[in-house]
Amino acid sequence: MFKKILIANRGEIALRVVRACKDLGVTSCIAYSTADRNTAAVEEADERVCIGPAPSAQSYLDMARLVGAAVSRGCEAVHPGYGFLSENAEFARKCLENGLTFIGPDPDVIDRMGEKSNAKQTMKAAGVPTVPGSDGAVETVEEAAKFAEEVGYPVLIKASAGGGGKGMREVHDPADLEHEYNAARSEARVAFGNDEVYLEKLITRPRHVEVQVMADNFGHAAAVCERDCSVQRRHQKLCEEAPSPALTPELRHEMCETAVRAVRATGYTNAGTIEFLLDEDGSYYFMEMNTRIQVEHPVTEEITRTDLVCEQLRIASGEPMTIPDGGIDTPDGHAFEFRINAEDPEHNFRPCPGTITKLRLPGGPGVRVDTHVYEGYKIPPTYDSLVAKLIVWGPTREAALARAKRALDEFQIEGIKTTLPFHRAVVREPDYAAGIVYTDFIPTHMPQFLA
Amino acid sequence: MFKKILIANRGEIALRVVRACKDLGVTSCIAYSTADRNTAAVEEADERVCIGPAPSAQSYLDMARLVGAAVSRGCEAVHPGYGFLSENAEFARKCLENGLTFIGPDPDVIDRMGEKSNAKQTMKAAGVPTVPGSDGAVETVEEAAKFAEEVGYPVLIKASAGGGGKGMREVHDPADLEHEYNAARSEARVAFGNDEVYLEKLITRPRHVEVQVMADNFGHAAAVCERDCSVQRRHQKLCEEAPSPALTPELRHEMCETAVRAVRATGYTNAGTIEFLLDEDGSYYFMEMNTRIQVEHPVTEEITRTDLVCEQLRIASGEPMTIPDGGIDTPDGHAFEFRINAEDPEHNFRPCPGTITKLRLPGGPGVRVDTHVYEGYKIPPTYDSLVAKLIVWGPTREAALARAKRALDEFQIEGIKTTLPFHRAVVREPDYAAGIVYTDFIPTHMPQFLA
Repeated sequence: MFKKILIANRGEIALRVVRACKDLGVTSCIAYSTADRNTAAVEEADERVCIGPAPSAQSYLDMARLVGAAVSRGCEAVHPGYGFLSENAEFARKCLENGLTFIGPDPDVIDRMGEKSNAKQTMKAAGVPTVPGSDGAVETVEEAAKFAEEVGYPVLIKASAGGGGKGMREVHDPADLEHEYNAARSEARVAFGNDEVYLEKLITRPRHVEVQVMADNFGHAAAVCERDCSVQRRHQKLCEEAPSPALTPELRHEMCETAVRAVRATGYTNAGTIEFLLDEDGSYYFMEMNTRIQVEHPVTEEITRTDLVCEQLRIASGEPMTIPDGGIDTPDGHAFEFRINAEDPEHNFRPCPGTITKLRLPGGPGVRVDTHVYEGYKIPPTYDSLVAKLIVWGPTREAALARAKRALDEFQIEGIKTTLPFHRAVVREPDYAAGIVYTDFIPTHMPQFLA
Repeated sequence: MFKKILIANRGEIALRVVRACKDLGVTSCIAYSTADRNTAAVEEADERVCIGPAPSAQSYLDMARLVGAAVSRGCEAVHPGYGFLSENAEFARKCLENGLTFIGPDPDVIDRMGEKSNAKQTMKAAGVPTVPGSDGAVETVEEAAKFAEEVGYPVLIKASAGGGGKGMREVHDPADLEHEYNAARSEARVAFGNDEVYLEKLITRPRHVEVQVMADNFGHAAAVCERDCSVQRRHQKLCEEAPSPALTPELRHEMCETAVRAVRATGYTNAGTIEFLLDEDGSYYFMEMNTRIQVEHPVTEEITRTDLVCEQLRIASGEPMTIPDGGIDTPDGHAFEFRINAEDPEHNFRPCPGTITKLRLPGGPGVRVDTHVYEGYKIPPTYDSLVAKLIVWGPTREAALARAKRALDEFQIEGIKTTLPFHRAVVREPDYAAGIVYTDFIPTHMPQFLA
């Protein structure tokens, strides 16, 4: 095991890594910006090194300063957390070049999985289902019709040069195909000067289901159940749960096996997440891979009684992981995570930095809080707005949900606006309680929170 | 399930019951004294009723007021917590007479198990090992010698009318028997006006190992693993763990079976604890039974993922318990509990009421805090000094201990003295780390904390 590592991150994830270090007897040295001097993460770390001013470009994104700090403080490894440089292959390479272990996968694997179309091809080659697509330009409406018949309606026509929804058309009825195909091409021509289009099967009401994976340098690869992150607002996850209420044990087993196969095929090591779209018919399609620990990792920890950050450290230091080869596809109970952000859910979730004048954390059985803040803490306006994660476990989804309501009600933060009222509303939605949640949950069930 | 119950207790256990009520959808009505108006327990309860002034005799021990409050508020049941009236058969009867369910065993069972010599006879009859004793007065030194030879030295001579160590003599060597026997009798004569003595086998270096039991009204009886509470200061428990590091799986299985047999034989229902002395040779002897939930119940919850207070409510309301018949004798991991008391461990653990000027709770994986206090809370001098319980879980004893150190270090309380420094010292004692702990641990390893 490492003697000392540098934590190249801030906030709750930095404190999470500090805690894992303490649990393993590793000295934690935290890199912090001048704006973060007073967080509990900096206070609890064994050592601390200021790496620059508040703007991330001059501190948490400054590779040279981070590597320099790690080397000068005698660290053997760097934990990048999530966000910032955590999926930056160049940073991983700079660490290696300076004799530091990067706590994550090999930089080449980051490159391969980080680029979306590369990742899709790699996954497809590994036998992972991807959204059926035309694999290149569709030159005629007849060709489009043939593809649509093959994969079934609805389909999506997308501009090859596109982005931002321009030149994108949904087709639900074969009778509309010709019109929409022509419209997409002319829209694409206007928008991008290129009218090439391709087709994909349209997943109408998907869930976001992701599989946690973990692999070590001894050939062991594991899938550690899945998480359901379908509750999203403008593609931002707000609360997550594990396991997904949509999976049967058989489908879970199959998705976990698929994920393990993909990990082995790509030579992936350390922690990662394979994100899927899950269709209403039980089909699932690779979306993307995150080559780092994720914000929502604690729900997995709670239903498998594992410590994923400790496993990251074990694997990076050259030890075998303690998660069994093949992984865990039998969840023990159910867990929810709620992201408590310093945002005003009644005003478009606008960030609300400020001073926390009162803080009461919930407690009791099945309740975990991960936070770097405390009563009197002043949230700087510089960074993301996550101030705490509330994680709740129960033996069943129903029991966990009852505890979630209780813990959300107990949680008191004053002085700033937070997403607590939003979460209290979510857990009281009947469809949420019933586990019927698609990625359109907020627009369809809680449109007041979109305004 | 009940619609509404009265909580006839205060502090962290009252909040614990409030939380269980919320988890089960039961309305909680808390009875509180004027000194407790500001605890988080009173704040979090659905309803509150003031039952009198601070002195317990006029509030938490006033049966008429408690029963009256329960009836007038339309409660169906009363949860007595621990301490106060929790083991008072008369209170249980008064509840029943007023149409209230007492959340605990039948009053006759409380009577039978509450009186120590009764309990011992009952347990003996149920085949539970008890400390070998002379079963009545020993009239001559010859009779004493015969008994001592039978059970083996060392033995303990005790005054039948005794208490507080008066007339109590240890005999380790047969040569000392006559002298000690005569000394005990004359000491007893002076102290109690009665020189009758009896003999018991002396367990020289026992551990305190207790089995959690639970039984419902459907004939299901369960033993839910054991707890080790050997770290005691003047017979006060300070920290506990589960499972006991001293038990083999075989001995655990045997003790759990014995406990289940005792529960069935006595017609016991609801939660209870059977306390044993465990000898170095693996023999165990019934000490006493507690007919209520205990302070240290959370360590059992953590290693079995059960909710013992919810089970109490289920059983009392006439539902079957969800713990399997026969119980659970395979622990899942290891848990510690540390009682954070408002006491000064450097000055004879004298109580230190006062205002909490700063409070930072530990968090992260495997950490649970049960507390009714908060930053700014003023601890009244009236009640016991427990301000918080820190419970830590890990997959192994070693992992749990590392987390315990981390969580104890993170825990910050200012404004009052607490037992935190004591616990931080305990977890760093090599014998404690090795699980080698007898009830003489503090005198032999940490004598500075006895002064």
